Amino acid sequence: MSMEVTFLGTGSAHPSPSPAASAVALRREGQCWLFDCGEGTQTQLMRSHLKAGRITKIFITHLHGDHFFGLPGLLCTLSLQSSPDSNKPPVDIYGPLGLRSFIWRTLELSHSQLLFPYVVHELVPTRDQCPAEEFKDFSSLDKDDTSPGEAQGRILHLDPVENSYLLVDDEQFVVKAFRLFHRIPSFGFAVEEKPRAGKLNVQKLKELGVQPGPLYGKLKNGIAVVLENGVTISPADVLEEPIPGRKICILGDCSGVVGDAAMKLCCEADMLIHEATLDDTQEEKAREHGHSTPKMASGFAKSCKVKKLVLTHFSQRYKPATQMGEGDADITELKRQAESVLDGQEVTLAEDFMTIEVPMKKQK
Amino acid sequence: MSMEVTFLGTGSAHPSPSPAASAVALRREGQCWLFDCGEGTQTQLMRSHLKAGRITKIFITHLHGDHFFGLPGLLCTLSLQSSPDSNKPPVDIYGPLGLRSFIWRTLELSHSQLLFPYVVHELVPTRDQCPAEEFKDFSSLDKDDTSPGEAQGRILHLDPVENSYLLVDDEQFVVKAFRLFHRIPSFGFAVEEKPRAGKLNVQKLKELGVQPGPLYGKLKNGIAVVLENGVTISPADVLEEPIPGRKICILGDCSGVVGDAAMKLCCEADMLIHEATLDDTQEEKAREHGHSTPKMASGFAKSCKVKKLVLTHFSQRYKPATQMGEGDADITELKRQAESVLDGQEVTLAEDFMTIEVPMKKQK
Repeated sequence: MSMEVTFLGTGSAHPSPSPAASAVALRREGQCWLFDCGEGTQTQLMRSHLKAGRITKIFITHLHGDHFFGLPGLLCTLSLQSSPDSNKPPVDIYGPLGLRSFIWRTLELSHSQLLFPYVVHELVPTRDQCPAEEFKDFSSLDKDDTSPGEAQGRILHLDPVENSYLLVDDEQFVVKAFRLFHRIPSFGFAVEEKPRAGKLNVQKLKELGVQPGPLYGKLKNGIAVVLENGVTISPADVLEEPIPGRKICILGDCSGVVGDAAMKLCCEADMLIHEATLDDTQEEKAREHGHSTPKMASGFAKSCKVKKLVLTHFSQRYKPATQMGEGDADITELKRQAESVLDGQEVTLAEDFMTIEVPMKKQK
Repeated sequence: MSMEVTFLGTGSAHPSPSPAASAVALRREGQCWLFDCGEGTQTQLMRSHLKAGRITKIFITHLHGDHFFGLPGLLCTLSLQSSPDSNKPPVDIYGPLGLRSFIWRTLELSHSQLLFPYVVHELVPTRDQCPAEEFKDFSSLDKDDTSPGEAQGRILHLDPVENSYLLVDDEQFVVKAFRLFHRIPSFGFAVEEKPRAGKLNVQKLKELGVQPGPLYGKLKNGIAVVLENGVTISPADVLEEPIPGRKICILGDCSGVVGDAAMKLCCEADMLIHEATLDDTQEEKAREHGHSTPKMASGFAKSCKVKKLVLTHFSQRYKPATQMGEGDADITELKRQAESVLDGQEVTLAEDFMTIEVPMKKQK
């Protein structure tokens, strides 16, 4: 079952023709989840191989414009391209408190009535996620009227035991959010596939006298079966080891994490997507603006023993060597800085439209 | 004094890589005025020869997303690129009632404190500018708090005598808005340069005994001077005929006008920029959505005796012949339809990044 990550925008601060503002798409089984939606994300989607109509969930890491100003426009365009269907499940939107009111008011002002249902689940940040003077309490915004077509989303408070937020827990995935430190409250998302049942051991099935047919399906789905001779076959007898799920962690802007959940949730991630706005020589400036450098990102990746680190959200001053103009810096320097911390483990620098496949895991 | 119009986005409904969402820039003497600001306008500006930092006024025709969703992002990027300067005059933003609250709330939510002053002047629409069931009264929005750095803009009501709104009246320009009929209230803007003083007639000055120097400047500026011999020279004696100002009219989405101001204000315009979303064969559909066809646009242009008609805001289904794919229609058909109404007078179809110069006029 293929799973791939596509970077739609990898620049910081504001969109530019290249790189565009922040957006990452995660695709699996024809579904598409979008992480952040800077201005222009909808045109980046049109330029890519992805189909915007396949988006079923949208996650917003934090409320800086370059991460969410493209959201109302994307929703309106999705609506223009969709046909009314009362059975359509809502598009789930997750983001910091204040996002629901913004979406609702913007659609109201622009007379946009979406032809598909959506629901906004808001994460309530804690005050230690940003400098005290930057914290704004948007809880009053949530008292605004709800638009008639909009189901009421959940208000998600920090789980004090887990130190995280549980967003999704369905048959296939668990998605949790964890807290980051930035100029304003920011979040990271850990997307974890649930393990898949191992293959049926056909040789063993034959030996046990189970005939191919519906019983195979039951066993594969974890249901014990009783044969005509009265013998009970349990799935564990005939299934190979389950296939572990993949784990992708996508962090918003940050100069560090808050609490111990980030480290736990990102542990041994197959892919960690971390910002590196400025290079290591600019660490002081990066921290001042709540951002990371390659050393900071790879230090976190190393602690979490992640298998693949991808850096993104680069300052517009970094350009590929082939595009460098006066005043630009060589972006490959960020790769070298990150790899030196990871003892040579390869680090990838994201680029607009780069797609990375996350291969299925092997049985343990 | 050069004056040019650049089309930054010429598509309707939503942005796409090409054409982009609505935006037109009017440049004169290094200043730039922006008309509409669909999502992605800031990146279109970066791709163009224009400098976003030169924008001094922004006009929004109506509150559909493809005409103003790019505004908060543009303001934030302008701020990032500017340095604090207490003497900087504010950027004037003109648009329908509700725009100020939207800008303020969006900047507040995204923790964006602009480093330059801006002021939003809101036009109060009348109920006959759209179908009754579509009209929304946004006057309550204007009771929101004002951000500390923001000067309070004017609330502009329709002048019942002129049937228009006076937006700007300074040394160089008069700008008035007039009412259009659309799905939601929409406006057109008539930008009229004031006449410029004619050249000094040097031969005549010599004959009258006026020596070259400061007196020339005074006369040129319309001030009478008294010579040493007691003779008074009035500007009219030595100035050639004034040079008439140019007039550019930019209309928002519409399927017609409301009241008689549009016709008066657009009379003999040097350039009329009018939407033509669908071709003449789709007139019924166009009217249903509050839009125009080439025939409708050129009919208005003909009544106003405009000198140049430029059509824009094309449905995404029209493509240049060279880019046509399955299901696309030939955009040049719109040009033919418009020109047939104008008895062959040439009509221009706008394209993204097309720049049209509006030459200085000759003395009458």
